Amino acid sequence: MADNTQILLVEKPTGKLTEAHFESRQAPIPTPGEGQVLVRSVLLSQDAANRAWMQGATYRAAVNPGDVMAGYAIGEVVESRAAGFAVGDVVSGDVGWQEYAALDARAVLHCSDHRPLSHLLSVLGIAGKTAYHGLIHVPGIEAGETLVVSAAAGSVGSIVGQIGRIKGARVVGIAGGAEKCAWVRDALGFDACIDYKGEEVPSKLAELCPEGIDVYFDNVGGTILQAALFAMKLHGRISCCGAVSQYDGSAPASPVGIPGLLVVKRLRMEGFIMSDFSDRDAEAERDLAAWVASGEIQVVEDILDGLENAPGGLVGLLAGENRGKRMIRVGPDPA
Amino acid sequence: MADNTQILLVEKPTGKLTEAHFESRQAPIPTPGEGQVLVRSVLLSQDAANRAWMQGATYRAAVNPGDVMAGYAIGEVVESRAAGFAVGDVVSGDVGWQEYAALDARAVLHCSDHRPLSHLLSVLGIAGKTAYHGLIHVPGIEAGETLVVSAAAGSVGSIVGQIGRIKGARVVGIAGGAEKCAWVRDALGFDACIDYKGEEVPSKLAELCPEGIDVYFDNVGGTILQAALFAMKLHGRISCCGAVSQYDGSAPASPVGIPGLLVVKRLRMEGFIMSDFSDRDAEAERDLAAWVASGEIQVVEDILDGLENAPGGLVGLLAGENRGKRMIRVGPDPA
Repeated sequence: MADNTQILLVEKPTGKLTEAHFESRQAPIPTPGEGQVLVRSVLLSQDAANRAWMQGATYRAAVNPGDVMAGYAIGEVVESRAAGFAVGDVVSGDVGWQEYAALDARAVLHCSDHRPLSHLLSVLGIAGKTAYHGLIHVPGIEAGETLVVSAAAGSVGSIVGQIGRIKGARVVGIAGGAEKCAWVRDALGFDACIDYKGEEVPSKLAELCPEGIDVYFDNVGGTILQAALFAMKLHGRISCCGAVSQYDGSAPASPVGIPGLLVVKRLRMEGFIMSDFSDRDAEAERDLAAWVASGEIQVVEDILDGLENAPGGLVGLLAGENRGKRMIRVGPDPA
Repeated sequence: MADNTQILLVEKPTGKLTEAHFESRQAPIPTPGEGQVLVRSVLLSQDAANRAWMQGATYRAAVNPGDVMAGYAIGEVVESRAAGFAVGDVVSGDVGWQEYAALDARAVLHCSDHRPLSHLLSVLGIAGKTAYHGLIHVPGIEAGETLVVSAAAGSVGSIVGQIGRIKGARVVGIAGGAEKCAWVRDALGFDACIDYKGEEVPSKLAELCPEGIDVYFDNVGGTILQAALFAMKLHGRISCCGAVSQYDGSAPASPVGIPGLLVVKRLRMEGFIMSDFSDRDAEAERDLAAWVASGEIQVVEDILDGLENAPGGLVGLLAGENRGKRMIRVGPDPA
């Protein structure tokens, strides 16, 4: 029987993640136990949160050295010992960084019939639903409000900003590099985009949001969150989606002025993860699919070919090299 | 005509506030202009926020050296040049630390008929309404939830905890000193109280809130906010009322783990000030008065006699020496 290529985390990163923290190995393809399915991986999601998992338990258990790297993927059932799953079914779950995984059926979900499959990881998947729930159901957004989005070229930020525009908000992105910012404006339709690598974020926020920020969607934490806190309007709302600036190093810095700024400006800061709103996924999928069909949302995907590119892909993601949703094509689409 | 004793802030404090930052002087009693009333001060409120006003503009302009110290007070109209105000009316406003002030009528409010007048600064005034709105209308509280309140012996905290008990929550206070904590439990009816001066707050929170904190009402910021953040339950709510630990020094410290803890635990942190909810003051006053009448809320007041005690009173308040609402009796009640 063919081998199962796996990529393991072999060392817990204390500073920046590098490809040297991973190793590839060949293992036997596992045999599913009773109640399990054997899944062949097709598309593997790459997310900044993958890095956070290496730091310790979060909303999931930590990934420790010696483990196959964890990762959410879409795949095909190639053997089933579980009721409700048949060979050929397209499913998603924590397949990890490997070609095959035997997973408990209750940890696996059937995918919708929507194609291309990649959309189920991007606009209709983790990224799109994180953007939708984290904007619509956490701070909310009203026409005429000013929305600021960090990591604006990333998988989630690129969709948050587009939803904000659809809802009638004025949308200011923050991204790294002049070229990337131009793309955020021109391709994604943001009203403005601040280059945090080449511009002073606090003064640019003051210039672009003279009346203050109504809603800040935070993907990054750190100094950009700090700048946004000072630029918030009275009664502003901050949606805390992630803190990519804090994942890839050893010394996370909190913004100053907590809780003082929250009191003085009467701000609300709220953290969430996508699965908190799974009871409203149908609404999200319906709206997102409609906006894709109408052309109101540009789907931006960044697909690297081959599981061997997963380590470099994640390292690059953390350095901000991706545009839109990064994923790894591990194998061909199901026939 | 009699003199008007005034107390001025004469130096901006950079570290701890002391009585040496103030000076007393005699000035003429002012003459009210058109549209103004002359108010004789009766009871002057002392609040931790008074110290924050010296640091810079907050929700009000800064108090600067040379200014009569600002302060909210209840007084009697002794001369009126404004429609709607007559001699003998009992009013409230920013009278400041002085015996008499000429105030614009639009900056002055009529007081209710409730007596004693001191209640209008304590349970039915700033403290009570801050407690009520900041608990009921910001995080909310449900029967069976665990509520943690810092500065539990203070003007606001003492009422927050009592409202929490009325609403059926389990209430854990945090206060300084074993004797004060015993009083919080015995006199105010809190379920438990942690002595932050003599006990380790993180381990005591873990022991007393084994399933985590549902609602944390934060009066202090700093290391106690930090400990609460780590002890919050998933989807917990934090009401940010003030940060007394940060006012009286030069180096405010933010808690670590912002925004990471907010995301991982899906917490909501929200700042407020009492006046944000002025449209619901009638509800607050009705409920609070009923609870006082039924004996469900103990009114705790700490009244110092004489304006000359205002500097020492505020210094002591910031050191936590008060129990319940501290105020200064500046003059006799209106006849």
